[in-house]
Amino acid sequence: MDIEVLEGIFDANEKIARENEALFRERGVMAMNLMASPGAGKTSLIAATLQLLKEKLEVGVIEGDIASSVDAEKLKAYDIPVVQINTGGACHLDAIMIQQALAHMDLAAIDLLIIENVGNLVCPAEFKLGEALRAMILSVAEGHDKPLKYPLMFSDSDVLVVNKTDLIGLGDFDMAELREVVTRMNPDIVIFEVSCRTGEGLGAWADWLEQRVRDFKES
Amino acid sequence: MDIEVLEGIFDANEKIARENEALFRERGVMAMNLMASPGAGKTSLIAATLQLLKEKLEVGVIEGDIASSVDAEKLKAYDIPVVQINTGGACHLDAIMIQQALAHMDLAAIDLLIIENVGNLVCPAEFKLGEALRAMILSVAEGHDKPLKYPLMFSDSDVLVVNKTDLIGLGDFDMAELREVVTRMNPDIVIFEVSCRTGEGLGAWADWLEQRVRDFKES
Repeated sequence: MDIEVLEGIFDANEKIARENEALFRERGVMAMNLMASPGAGKTSLIAATLQLLKEKLEVGVIEGDIASSVDAEKLKAYDIPVVQINTGGACHLDAIMIQQALAHMDLAAIDLLIIENVGNLVCPAEFKLGEALRAMILSVAEGHDKPLKYPLMFSDSDVLVVNKTDLIGLGDFDMAELREVVTRMNPDIVIFEVSCRTGEGLGAWADWLEQRVRDFKES
Repeated sequence: MDIEVLEGIFDANEKIARENEALFRERGVMAMNLMASPGAGKTSLIAATLQLLKEKLEVGVIEGDIASSVDAEKLKAYDIPVVQINTGGACHLDAIMIQQALAHMDLAAIDLLIIENVGNLVCPAEFKLGEALRAMILSVAEGHDKPLKYPLMFSDSDVLVVNKTDLIGLGDFDMAELREVVTRMNPDIVIFEVSCRTGEGLGAWADWLEQRVRDFKES
């Protein structure tokens, strides 16, 4: 019974996701769905990315949280369009929430739309939003064994940003093992190693993302 | 429409949870539902707790994961009854899964049943399993702002274990602020500060848990 119900929800979501995707394509907006566990560094990565790309691209952000506008407020300093979605309990964003948020944004003025999903390594992976790029963050503090336990997120993302590399050596985190397991599950995934705290690796990430936006707009 | 469907699921779950609760009561088993984000240290806390309580109490464990038996295997050395549930995609345990797992356990031989939920700071909080104690872990690496963003888990838990205290000072984690916010949301919550890596604070946690089991069995 559960499965039947979920299939109904997924079908409805899938339809709206395709509408969002068509709208993004029409307006030349590359949308990135950014997913991760709570505290992995989603907002920190967005802030660092804005810092590096704000002169090169027009960026907009949709912040998804169950409650509060803590994250949206952290981005106020960047003077960019930010819409906060409060899901009111729901553990993931869905395409309908995004469709509603888009009514509050001037898409013609945006090249890159970053959608920060609810902190959750499970459910967000199941709901397409219409994004062109599915990005995930894994924090070093979470451990290298996570791909085996949360396979859908790792196998279904286009890019994995491993954050908090400044913590390597304090625990038993094994980057080589993480890379091997993730690449076996998802041979096409692109992996970056960064520390939003020290800035390490962020330049390579931002350069790659900028190129993805340019490729999208030309395609 | 979503809400209607979810209410149906919750009602069915609530009914089975009450059946589990009655069974635990009848057999003198104190069940603890242990919830946290991925990588916060659920399995590490269970291993440390087993080490400290194995001579004092009979402990059983139900491991909940979307996939793999990585966690159950970590507990093999303790020679206790462990049942692994693979949810096959579901982002939380529910009461029906627990009821099925209990058919594989000799409850008469167990004082404390630790149920490790799927790594997720959102959905597990919404599904009662029949537990007498709702426990959550927050890792220092996740940050002290999580209660505002994931309020249900914090307001609905009986005990909060703050793990990875050995990382305090490396980031901007503020324990005083965390305690203030959590206590405002949930004045009755008991908070422990531990490091499963260094062992700090684990004795106080295990002593408290042992007492809770003894109180339950006498009540």
